[in-house]
Amino acid sequence: MELKDKSKFPKVVIIGGGFGGLQVARKLKDMPVEILMVDKHNYHTFQPLLYQVAIGSLEADSIAFSLRKNFAGQKNFRFRNAEVTKVNPEKNTIDTTIGEIAYDYLVLATGSTTNFFGDKDIERFSMPMKSIPEALNLRSLILQNIEEAVLLNTKEERAPYLNFVLVGAGPTGVELSGALAELRNHILDKDYPELHKDHMKVYLVEFQPRVLGSMSEQASKGAREFLTKMGVEVLVNTKVESYDGNEIKLGDGKTIPTKNVIWSAGVMGVIPHGISKNIVERGNRIRVDSVCRVVGFSNIFAIGDVAAMITDETPKGHPGVAQVAIQMGNHVAKTIVQIINSEPTAPFKYFDKGSLATIGRNKAVADLGKLKFQGFFAWLIWMFVHLVSLLGFRNKIIVFINWSLSYLTYNGGARLIIRRFVKGGVTQNGHMPKDN
Amino acid sequence: MELKDKSKFPKVVIIGGGFGGLQVARKLKDMPVEILMVDKHNYHTFQPLLYQVAIGSLEADSIAFSLRKNFAGQKNFRFRNAEVTKVNPEKNTIDTTIGEIAYDYLVLATGSTTNFFGDKDIERFSMPMKSIPEALNLRSLILQNIEEAVLLNTKEERAPYLNFVLVGAGPTGVELSGALAELRNHILDKDYPELHKDHMKVYLVEFQPRVLGSMSEQASKGAREFLTKMGVEVLVNTKVESYDGNEIKLGDGKTIPTKNVIWSAGVMGVIPHGISKNIVERGNRIRVDSVCRVVGFSNIFAIGDVAAMITDETPKGHPGVAQVAIQMGNHVAKTIVQIINSEPTAPFKYFDKGSLATIGRNKAVADLGKLKFQGFFAWLIWMFVHLVSLLGFRNKIIVFINWSLSYLTYNGGARLIIRRFVKGGVTQNGHMPKDN
Repeated sequence: MELKDKSKFPKVVIIGGGFGGLQVARKLKDMPVEILMVDKHNYHTFQPLLYQVAIGSLEADSIAFSLRKNFAGQKNFRFRNAEVTKVNPEKNTIDTTIGEIAYDYLVLATGSTTNFFGDKDIERFSMPMKSIPEALNLRSLILQNIEEAVLLNTKEERAPYLNFVLVGAGPTGVELSGALAELRNHILDKDYPELHKDHMKVYLVEFQPRVLGSMSEQASKGAREFLTKMGVEVLVNTKVESYDGNEIKLGDGKTIPTKNVIWSAGVMGVIPHGISKNIVERGNRIRVDSVCRVVGFSNIFAIGDVAAMITDETPKGHPGVAQVAIQMGNHVAKTIVQIINSEPTAPFKYFDKGSLATIGRNKAVADLGKLKFQGFFAWLIWMFVHLVSLLGFRNKIIVFINWSLSYLTYNGGARLIIRRFVKGGVTQNGHMPKDN
Repeated sequence: MELKDKSKFPKVVIIGGGFGGLQVARKLKDMPVEILMVDKHNYHTFQPLLYQVAIGSLEADSIAFSLRKNFAGQKNFRFRNAEVTKVNPEKNTIDTTIGEIAYDYLVLATGSTTNFFGDKDIERFSMPMKSIPEALNLRSLILQNIEEAVLLNTKEERAPYLNFVLVGAGPTGVELSGALAELRNHILDKDYPELHKDHMKVYLVEFQPRVLGSMSEQASKGAREFLTKMGVEVLVNTKVESYDGNEIKLGDGKTIPTKNVIWSAGVMGVIPHGISKNIVERGNRIRVDSVCRVVGFSNIFAIGDVAAMITDETPKGHPGVAQVAIQMGNHVAKTIVQIINSEPTAPFKYFDKGSLATIGRNKAVADLGKLKFQGFFAWLIWMFVHLVSLLGFRNKIIVFINWSLSYLTYNGGARLIIRRFVKGGVTQNGHMPKDN
């Protein structure tokens, strides 16, 4: 499982090709190290646009980019498409689905996954949206349930198929509820002449007192107004008690019949086996020192969503956003080179570039330092920032065209059920086409 | 399961949203009929470009188009996403996975599927490519097997993963083998620095004496020359004896170790239960009269790949190409209106517009009536014809951009393993990521 041309350069193994892992490998280009990236997918996922894949506005291929293609030509880079099962710090190796791999330096850039907070029913019946396969499952579920609604005759029978409940009003919940509202407002009547848009309802449920809790008060207020105007029912200060696949029970006693619960109420770090529970913080994140080194180890680093750098300034660690992962990745690449050269290292400092969230057509909110604004201009900035951040020229141009056409026609998106969503082996209505 | 607003117009049920079914529904727009289209997919598939999805040059969403979106606004059109299990001609209904549906006129536009000629091993171990899910499976298999090859050390160990055997040298086999040769020639070394292009081999196996047997001698000769120049080993007059998943045995005694056999050696019509075997011809096609009416029935039609119109001019029926389906669809729509109006009907006449096949960059062959030519100009025509035939402005523009970028960079295509190909529940190497 070793690289064939063994060099004398130290070997840096990066687990994960997300924003953080990508940055480490990029910054180590031309450095005297051998890089091996391991990822269970052969592509980088641009997570901020996952919700547009789920709603069917963008193809999965537009927001993903082949890791091999991205690093083609970088001579010190190798890639392995595998899952990591365990870290063995005592012998400086990792166990993977394709065998054991040795490292001199290890970077855990494993990211995060959905946190159901131990509720097995919610985990079983609700839909997460943290990866491309999950977004595609969600897309199929949404479209399949609208197809089911077409077959039913009364508003009551249709309700569970046309009620969409998003739990967690972070950027994902806000952006996806806005996109669902636009589907309802502009597309439902056209594509499904049997249905009426009043039959479809979108709920956004949040335990905290406001949506976009990590952004400013102004952003929260703006986002909530936009959502309400688009017809989303925003329920703040509201806890989810239970969900059984047919009905969601809320803390205030309210119940909503629904087969569509999308869970974006929390994330947790993805930690391979072999990392002691003693250094795992809240949110399943690994405690790191000021240079992102995992506490207790000299040659293992953790960055991004899986890292908890607890300082006086950041008592809960850094926010789980792309910028943190990118900046930590940068810092770790630099630190590894400094360690190799026996140079002094410097502590990591996060530079907050601000936050953006979009709600819909011409509607976004922006917190850029002291500048806080909402509406059309924020939406333009949101689009620009996301376009330039996308990996690959092809992806940028294809996303741009898709957005332009959607803007002009009010009817973007292919809305194809390419693979039916199948939970537990059968679809909700019990049948499954042969060539799924 | 009936349409709610029952009108007095006769009800035309169309099974299948391929080239033929689509045309029937289009031509019946504004006619005094109620149309119900039933398809197991909610989209139309542009089959001529499936091979580009398989090779990873195009997204699935670019060659598929939502049937609902396509007919949005056509007042007499309704759609049901379901599979048809049986036709009940005695009571003018069909059984489907969403219940029984009544018709006054029924159009079978069910198309064709891969014909393995009863060989269970070949069916089990080789890959068909007649639908988008199948093309995506093939894409994943190709990329997964190249990833496997990276993990192996000798040319011999790698061979089964890097030998690609295409059986059947019709347009699909020719186009896909050309695309695989281009992957080998331009991309393999770049994306997989551990591999060398000499390790990958592409074979095109054909039982008949020439490739593209349905086209002219000139086209066959041109295609074969192009393929050979690109490094494809073309084996004509060669039968496949057996394939066990690891090794394919050919009629001449040759064996090739390979985990990649793509089977495009034959198709057969898809016939729902309830149609008597007595009227089923060679290739599993339903015998129809001169207006595409199924023999023995006054109100059931069959068109395209599933129809066999046996006449003196067409003793084997018409070729299984899009143009036949489209022209038959047109004719059947006209015929149904004539029957409703008690007007005389006219026999179907096929107008052959010619054939095109592409082999690769700047390389195609064209038979357009008496004009037969090969090379760059044929390739331009091929691209033009396919672009204008694609459904939807968005798809046309996105395919055009993908092609342009591929042309400029020699490195188009996203090549993502979005869903791992899993045969019989486990991947070839026995592991499967959790969020497949």
